[in-house]
Amino acid sequence: MAQKPSIPKGTRDFSPADMRMRNYILSTIRDVFLLYGFKQIETPAMELMTTLMGKYGEEGDKLLFRIQNSGEKANEAPEKGLRYDLTVPFARYVVQHREEIAFPFKRFQMQPVWRADRPQKGRYREFYQCDVDVVGTDSLLCEAELVQIVESVFSRLNIRVCLHLNNRKILAGIAQTIGAPDKIVDITVAIDKLDKIGIDKVNEELIERGLSQEAVDKLQPILHLSGTNEEKLDAIGQLLAGSEIGTKGVEETRYILSLCQEVGIKMPVELDLCLARGLNYYTGAIFEVKALDVQIGSITGGGRYDNLTGIFGMPGVSGVGISFGIDRIYDVLDTLHNYTIDNDQSRTQVIFVAMGEAEQRYSMRWACYLREQGLRVEVYPDVAKMKKQLGYADANNIRYVAIVGSNEMASNQVMLKDMIEGEQELVSQEELIHKLQSK
Amino acid sequence: MAQKPSIPKGTRDFSPADMRMRNYILSTIRDVFLLYGFKQIETPAMELMTTLMGKYGEEGDKLLFRIQNSGEKANEAPEKGLRYDLTVPFARYVVQHREEIAFPFKRFQMQPVWRADRPQKGRYREFYQCDVDVVGTDSLLCEAELVQIVESVFSRLNIRVCLHLNNRKILAGIAQTIGAPDKIVDITVAIDKLDKIGIDKVNEELIERGLSQEAVDKLQPILHLSGTNEEKLDAIGQLLAGSEIGTKGVEETRYILSLCQEVGIKMPVELDLCLARGLNYYTGAIFEVKALDVQIGSITGGGRYDNLTGIFGMPGVSGVGISFGIDRIYDVLDTLHNYTIDNDQSRTQVIFVAMGEAEQRYSMRWACYLREQGLRVEVYPDVAKMKKQLGYADANNIRYVAIVGSNEMASNQVMLKDMIEGEQELVSQEELIHKLQSK
Repeated sequence: MAQKPSIPKGTRDFSPADMRMRNYILSTIRDVFLLYGFKQIETPAMELMTTLMGKYGEEGDKLLFRIQNSGEKANEAPEKGLRYDLTVPFARYVVQHREEIAFPFKRFQMQPVWRADRPQKGRYREFYQCDVDVVGTDSLLCEAELVQIVESVFSRLNIRVCLHLNNRKILAGIAQTIGAPDKIVDITVAIDKLDKIGIDKVNEELIERGLSQEAVDKLQPILHLSGTNEEKLDAIGQLLAGSEIGTKGVEETRYILSLCQEVGIKMPVELDLCLARGLNYYTGAIFEVKALDVQIGSITGGGRYDNLTGIFGMPGVSGVGISFGIDRIYDVLDTLHNYTIDNDQSRTQVIFVAMGEAEQRYSMRWACYLREQGLRVEVYPDVAKMKKQLGYADANNIRYVAIVGSNEMASNQVMLKDMIEGEQELVSQEELIHKLQSK
Repeated sequence: MAQKPSIPKGTRDFSPADMRMRNYILSTIRDVFLLYGFKQIETPAMELMTTLMGKYGEEGDKLLFRIQNSGEKANEAPEKGLRYDLTVPFARYVVQHREEIAFPFKRFQMQPVWRADRPQKGRYREFYQCDVDVVGTDSLLCEAELVQIVESVFSRLNIRVCLHLNNRKILAGIAQTIGAPDKIVDITVAIDKLDKIGIDKVNEELIERGLSQEAVDKLQPILHLSGTNEEKLDAIGQLLAGSEIGTKGVEETRYILSLCQEVGIKMPVELDLCLARGLNYYTGAIFEVKALDVQIGSITGGGRYDNLTGIFGMPGVSGVGISFGIDRIYDVLDTLHNYTIDNDQSRTQVIFVAMGEAEQRYSMRWACYLREQGLRVEVYPDVAKMKKQLGYADANNIRYVAIVGSNEMASNQVMLKDMIEGEQELVSQEELIHKLQSK
């Protein structure tokens, strides 16, 4: 036999078992989005290079996959590239279709994206993103609603999580207050690493990045804030009292937390002043969600951006959104092991095993009737040995096997075998339906 | 404002309204596939060029989109291409994962494919395919099951269709019988056009393609066959009596039709000896489905192939499958106009319109409770004029608006406005839930 075929590195095939779990995750998330009135859109896999270039920084530009028509000469620059995320195509969509859209526009989008990253464990060149955003309003109700969505999704998936919350305006206030307003990026990049490298290394890095010793000293009480969210907000509020933007950030955060309380959020929500995330386009709240029982980093994140559509010539549209990391959520569920999908709608409920051609016809008639009752039914297509047919049922996790021989046909019954309990009994059509529907 | 951004030609954005209909079509089809025990898989958007090249003929090779990493030099031949159909990736999947698969393998797959075709009305460079196949058995029960699936899908979608049926073995038998066994491709390509160009032009083309006048004369009675399927099968059976393969084709077709009768197929199934379709890999039954009330060509098609995995070094795996043309099905539904989705699960059921900040908080608490009852609820995020908020409800086809002012809060009610009937009434939380759940 020739060499086995394969697929490009960094890409994956999804088997029926994978798909069962992925569909379960996606449909759980979709159901929650719909409860909140979000509307689904899809954009093309390929976008014009003019849409993509310069939107993801220099590093991002290098990770774009470019697409060549056969018509294009090899040395021509390709005019199209594969979708790199769902945010830039969404901004492009809003600007392109602004006349058709009734703002505020609540949209969600679940599609694959492609990045020419070096493949490694947990990092793929093709992966799904699952984004939910509201654009066209700066109301903080939207932030609270996204927190509710996070809680709802992970409670339905039985994943215990903590939501970390920050605000870009607080970060700006900090930079201003310690006398380094132009160093906000450097400060956040450094303090974002506090968990990983510790306070001393962070301080070293701050000096390397050009902060004065005085500024670093002033930053220390902020890095050491502790206590409840209320206590932290009181403390940072006092520290930033002289900064208008910082004070605004504190107020916004208080309001979001009070709305969360209003709607009875139960998951831990923690004010985390070291949280930065893709700071460059966030302008208000910043979110990050971490699983409590699995060490895997962030599984969902997002924030408010005040000028995303500005890059396409439509300024002044504020928005806020979060993105669920499907692949990591899958890994969390996979790690938690004890995971089973309740009421799995994708598994065959009964398979007919027929001992001859007449039995097959009889089975097909029964199967037809059972499907009309909404039951998921297979008829083994070949007249094969019983052992082979039962082996198929077993390999496909089909619990019930309806065995049909001439006796069963004569009495208008089937011999129903329970592959888990090992029992078997003769049943009529109505008994079979009742049995399967009650499981 | 800068020039509006756009998307590559031949690609499309799907709006919320488009997605509602597309999701409805896809979930209808998926539900039917699951009733028959088919399992979903997904394959990567990009395949190795070695997997794709030479599988779609010379024309197909030219229509492949090639993918360049930024790491690749412009003059290097790209090693990856975009998926061109779902059949070749499926064959690749079966061979690559053969040790994990329990045959017969019943799979379905719903994913976009890409072709660098010249874009025109109804032809896109990115479009969805929706394929269902059984591989690893040559049982004709599978053909019958596919016919059942076709009937089920289109009856659920309320599209009246006719299924056209032929068999590659009958076509081979015809070529043999008229003395031109090596001309089977030429014969079928020509007679495939009978509907469009008429019998005289077909006969001219047959001569041009190198058939003798004698062969063309012998073909005439076959082209003029009419009557019921039974009558046609009797006639062609007699004409092909001297051809072993032709006789086999007639027998297979009889058996498939008898199974269709057994399970009570009600849609018209018509034996169509001029049906050929991608003849090169079909070896048995050939299917094509046409809408009866819209002129749009084939909306679903497929057939049996005995050696699809042979191209990847795994011979002897027989399979049969069909592909639903989602875009054309969408166009049919769009043309039929009177089309509405029953029990649409993606539309918001009630939106809260609040006249101030306290009213917003009250609305968010109510919304939270309603969503726990499974209702789809929005809270308008801004404290805006009533007219603006009602305009949003209207633009988003939300029937019920719950208006909250200080009086409603005082009495623990909302003023519920029916945007269709124009009526409004004060209702309690339980009354509101009951009203929405009963709609």
